Amino acid sequence: MIHQLVSNSRFWRAALMTICAIAAAMTVSLPAEQLRAASGVTHFKLKNGMEVVVIPDHRVPVVTHMVWYRVGAADEPRGVSGIAHFLEHLMFKGTEKISPGEFSKIVARNGGEDNAFTGHDATSYFQRVAKDRLPLLMEMEADRMVNLRLLEKDVVTERKVILEERRSRVENDPSNILGEQMNAALYQSHPYGIPILGWEHEMRALDRKKAIDFYKRYYAPNNAILIVAGDVTADEAKKLAENTYGKVKPNTDRIRDARPIEPPHRAPIRLNLEDPRAGRATVQRFYLAPSYSNAEPGEAEALDLMMKVLSSGSTSRMYKSLVVEQKKAASAGGWYSGTGLDSGRLGVYAVASNGVEIADVEKAMDEVIAEFIEKGATQKELDRARNSYIASHIYGGDSQSSLARRYGWGLVNGRTIADIEQWPERLEKITIDDLQRVAKKYFDMNQSVTGVLRPVETKNAGAKKAGHGKQKS
Amino acid sequence: MIHQLVSNSRFWRAALMTICAIAAAMTVSLPAEQLRAASGVTHFKLKNGMEVVVIPDHRVPVVTHMVWYRVGAADEPRGVSGIAHFLEHLMFKGTEKISPGEFSKIVARNGGEDNAFTGHDATSYFQRVAKDRLPLLMEMEADRMVNLRLLEKDVVTERKVILEERRSRVENDPSNILGEQMNAALYQSHPYGIPILGWEHEMRALDRKKAIDFYKRYYAPNNAILIVAGDVTADEAKKLAENTYGKVKPNTDRIRDARPIEPPHRAPIRLNLEDPRAGRATVQRFYLAPSYSNAEPGEAEALDLMMKVLSSGSTSRMYKSLVVEQKKAASAGGWYSGTGLDSGRLGVYAVASNGVEIADVEKAMDEVIAEFIEKGATQKELDRARNSYIASHIYGGDSQSSLARRYGWGLVNGRTIADIEQWPERLEKITIDDLQRVAKKYFDMNQSVTGVLRPVETKNAGAKKAGHGKQKS
Repeated sequence: MIHQLVSNSRFWRAALMTICAIAAAMTVSLPAEQLRAASGVTHFKLKNGMEVVVIPDHRVPVVTHMVWYRVGAADEPRGVSGIAHFLEHLMFKGTEKISPGEFSKIVARNGGEDNAFTGHDATSYFQRVAKDRLPLLMEMEADRMVNLRLLEKDVVTERKVILEERRSRVENDPSNILGEQMNAALYQSHPYGIPILGWEHEMRALDRKKAIDFYKRYYAPNNAILIVAGDVTADEAKKLAENTYGKVKPNTDRIRDARPIEPPHRAPIRLNLEDPRAGRATVQRFYLAPSYSNAEPGEAEALDLMMKVLSSGSTSRMYKSLVVEQKKAASAGGWYSGTGLDSGRLGVYAVASNGVEIADVEKAMDEVIAEFIEKGATQKELDRARNSYIASHIYGGDSQSSLARRYGWGLVNGRTIADIEQWPERLEKITIDDLQRVAKKYFDMNQSVTGVLRPVETKNAGAKKAGHGKQKS
Repeated sequence: MIHQLVSNSRFWRAALMTICAIAAAMTVSLPAEQLRAASGVTHFKLKNGMEVVVIPDHRVPVVTHMVWYRVGAADEPRGVSGIAHFLEHLMFKGTEKISPGEFSKIVARNGGEDNAFTGHDATSYFQRVAKDRLPLLMEMEADRMVNLRLLEKDVVTERKVILEERRSRVENDPSNILGEQMNAALYQSHPYGIPILGWEHEMRALDRKKAIDFYKRYYAPNNAILIVAGDVTADEAKKLAENTYGKVKPNTDRIRDARPIEPPHRAPIRLNLEDPRAGRATVQRFYLAPSYSNAEPGEAEALDLMMKVLSSGSTSRMYKSLVVEQKKAASAGGWYSGTGLDSGRLGVYAVASNGVEIADVEKAMDEVIAEFIEKGATQKELDRARNSYIASHIYGGDSQSSLARRYGWGLVNGRTIADIEQWPERLEKITIDDLQRVAKKYFDMNQSVTGVLRPVETKNAGAKKAGHGKQKS
């Protein structure tokens, strides 16, 4: 099924980007009339509370249609992990009007493509079709927003699919096993520590009732954002939306609970995973950091730029030092994940070169970070990083689907249209002092989890189980 | 106030014993008539569902009266940590009939003493008084089961008390800070990872409404167990109970949710805490293990005996090797915490001798464990451990209050009267092979968290924050 193709990007997005503001930030208050940004993007609400964003792009007669629900894996009840993602799969099972499995086929028959993904904070469904098929799509998507029909047999079959998805993505890949464990250690209280795919034993217990309960609580027009990008005017889109989504009743119940706030961590945490399937020894580290939604003004922008200078690509400090100069690492880098409602993360990693002890690689990685904290970035580095981001922002503006995702992500994560569009201007204000300041503030070992993965052969069961006298740092 | 005196034992019980079966095990099905064990202990239910256990002890005209609620910190809503313990404090604030703070004073004026504590799975209130005061006590305890009156000002004051309790017990003691962090890492999904006292930022947000909501859901006769030990017959106690507790209406709502099952851990976890207030460097390790409630038959008994041989007291393997023979440690030991509804823990620890690196101490500790896994215990060691436990069981039977606690703990943790009384017989069946088997099975580094505490001076803020290039294993 087509929606599974999406899972690829879905998982990585989940793992790398979706870890992340205050529930209060989730309700955007909009005036009754539509707001039109200088970019031509229009933002308004239907009477039932559904938000609509229209992004004009009249170059080709094509539209990208997305519906974003303000619900994700971090909203799952305790012990029911994986239900948000499972429901995303089940949303393709049909309604009174659409037979099970037909949704994607209808889209394909109409020359379109469709897709979906689940994050910790949002679940999104999207399609790309010729402009004249937009009314059909909107009708279908509005239909499955509240009329989902789940047959027991389809639920049972799809549960096998998600278990297989977990097996192939996590269980087959020791670095993902380690990443999952690191996240669980990084978030001791907040549900971002629970994998989006779910814990296997809880996934096995997911059933029709749990899916329906979750669906009935969270899938409603007043908890959704419609993004239409493409060859359509705001007025056309509004009329179509009113005739489809506009007819769906809002859910008057309380929709989303605030998530618990992660308590301060007091000590660095380390995990060691030895797995014969691992390639070269790898060290990675996550640090708790704020996200765009809850950072002090300018901090998230500074974190993005700082990590770009420090760790992104072959011209970064990390790569140049560890890979090019010292040749200790085969690869090295890092990232800042600043989406997310409640928290962000910094990540750094390095893969050992042949014959180099991973402890030496970690030491070299830490020296690069320590030097950055001490001396900061040069203006040239900052300018290059900033230009690179601004260029991507502009290039991204050229792609209908990336624009649609940009606005969708921004809104579900508590941002406004202005926030999203003024990002380049905010980047312009960041100084090298800001970079050094956020590095000093957020490279805090006490708020970190370090994971080391080593390709060690499995020992005999007893010794392996115990492993006493064998632990390494 | 008297109930705070209990907090001492409360905290340690919480930290060392209360970490831990299946919610289903919580409803004990009892026949309508009372069951009388060979020990003379009687167990029955009142019509409203309240369980009653009467333990006869006619040596002195004194009774121990306890009420146990099947609710604890592991039942708290997400983000409301500490509410079970806070409510325990607030239970001393009074009712329509009893003025705020009067409860303990009335008990004292009647020559008695009272106390209370909160665990992850249970909350208990107890008093010891002259036999003729038992009707008064039962009336008072039944009254506050449902008639608690909380004034806003008392709630605000008591919140300061629990925050101070946290400050003095946790924040003032780096080993408790580390223990709290280790528990949080040991339970990545199950709420046993959340401290009983609560996370400080969540404690600050506890209020009257949260306390009342928790109280109304969980404090009800059908969620409580009354233990009366002392100079009273089952018939007398039953009549008194019917006239007091028996008049309280049961709560017909669903009472307790099942807790999530902890997912399998895949890699050893380590935490390093450096604190200038720490004494000598210390290493401690927790391993996930089953509890009496969810272990395979005989395993929990074998774990108790195994840990006794390995690590309890100055004749244990651990102490003899690390302290007496190698002189690497100033102290060393371990424990098995097997109470708890959902999980148990094994713990081992060692305090470094002057001049000895903590890594060496840990290595020595691991060697003792590895040797035990390889060679097991001797029959003589097993016999000594067993005799010690059986003797304690018998001596404990001589103390009214320890008997009352034994039955209370057993029942709230899903055991039956027979389970509790037949413990010595089950210990008799354990063999040295069982000890070796459970050691091999549960000393699994992948299910462990190791914490190292070092008395390192605080560095300057920047370096400390970052700590890069400085981490030790």
